[in-house]
Amino acid sequence: MARTGRRPGATVTRERILEVAREEFADKGYTGASVRGIARAAGVDPALVHHFFGAKEQVFVAAMRLPYDPAEVLRGITASSSRHDRAEALLRFLLGAWEDPRTRGPLLALLRSAAAHDAFAVTVRGFLEDVLSRHIAERFEVPPLRATALLSQVFGLLAMRYVVEVEPLASATVDDIVAVYAPALRALIDADGAEPDDEGRRAGTGEPGGR
Amino acid sequence: MARTGRRPGATVTRERILEVAREEFADKGYTGASVRGIARAAGVDPALVHHFFGAKEQVFVAAMRLPYDPAEVLRGITASSSRHDRAEALLRFLLGAWEDPRTRGPLLALLRSAAAHDAFAVTVRGFLEDVLSRHIAERFEVPPLRATALLSQVFGLLAMRYVVEVEPLASATVDDIVAVYAPALRALIDADGAEPDDEGRRAGTGEPGGR
Repeated sequence: MARTGRRPGATVTRERILEVAREEFADKGYTGASVRGIARAAGVDPALVHHFFGAKEQVFVAAMRLPYDPAEVLRGITASSSRHDRAEALLRFLLGAWEDPRTRGPLLALLRSAAAHDAFAVTVRGFLEDVLSRHIAERFEVPPLRATALLSQVFGLLAMRYVVEVEPLASATVDDIVAVYAPALRALIDADGAEPDDEGRRAGTGEPGGR
Repeated sequence: MARTGRRPGATVTRERILEVAREEFADKGYTGASVRGIARAAGVDPALVHHFFGAKEQVFVAAMRLPYDPAEVLRGITASSSRHDRAEALLRFLLGAWEDPRTRGPLLALLRSAAAHDAFAVTVRGFLEDVLSRHIAERFEVPPLRATALLSQVFGLLAMRYVVEVEPLASATVDDIVAVYAPALRALIDADGAEPDDEGRRAGTGEPGGR
């Protein structure tokens, strides 16, 4: 922290960096933005950005006010559940985060402002590809196409339940939703007959798929 | 058609009705709007609205410029495919509609304007619940919660592939997508072990779910 020339209050600097980061991610997308560029625009040393937040991935998580770091969440799920149980663990984590009033607000604000903001697709595309999808592929040992399929299914569920609020999905209990969705997600994560390691290596497109 | 007092050109009247219908659906949502109300606001007889379009469902389809009537599409799919093949038939139809340049434009415009428009959730919620979800539940013989789950999964796929354009989902072939998604959708439509008729009758929430 002592590496920068100027040294205003740490909180003020943190907030200034996040504000600049939001602009940079909006202008250049996740892939185009860089810690170096954010530091330059904020008038601080890149080392200070690293010191406060970590890598670009964590800067994005902080700038978008995500209540959880997806990498940590996925690490926790794979550490604590078998391959078969990951679909249910992921669903229970996500639904829990959206049911909790403390985290639901920020998540809903994010999804709503995302929907209202035209350039949002570009902003998040790189994060979805380079971060979320990559972590899912690595942790769940599935090829990238299955990882993005999983992302799209989870996104559809959260959007329909919490944003559009379609009934009976909006008022169903978490247990009922897990009962209905877990087998569908498991069909993506745990394609029957395929060896996990095989699947993991056959990255990209074109895997012949289950049943 | 001859039932209205005034009789301007049919095309002009049609367009006027659709314009008014879009306003009514935006103001009152699908559930709150009515053919009677739309006719009143357009200064025509309700019978003329029925004559041009049919029931409220078809007025909505025309007003939103949907290139297909969902009820007809679902009727075609259930008539031409077995229960096991419906997931794939539905996916192939939807992906085909989005791949076709003639229908992709209107569909993309709809999804984009939907995302940009704050009140969209209210506008479409009723249509999703009263029309799409109901038709899916009836045609595919699944309880309402499974029907909305299916809707949410399909919505997630289309949004991620065609709007956010996340790779490798955006550039995967239709065959690759069908191979990955069909088993997941089948897990919703065709919960193994459950008799179709049983499932159909156990409408609502709380079905114990597959596997």
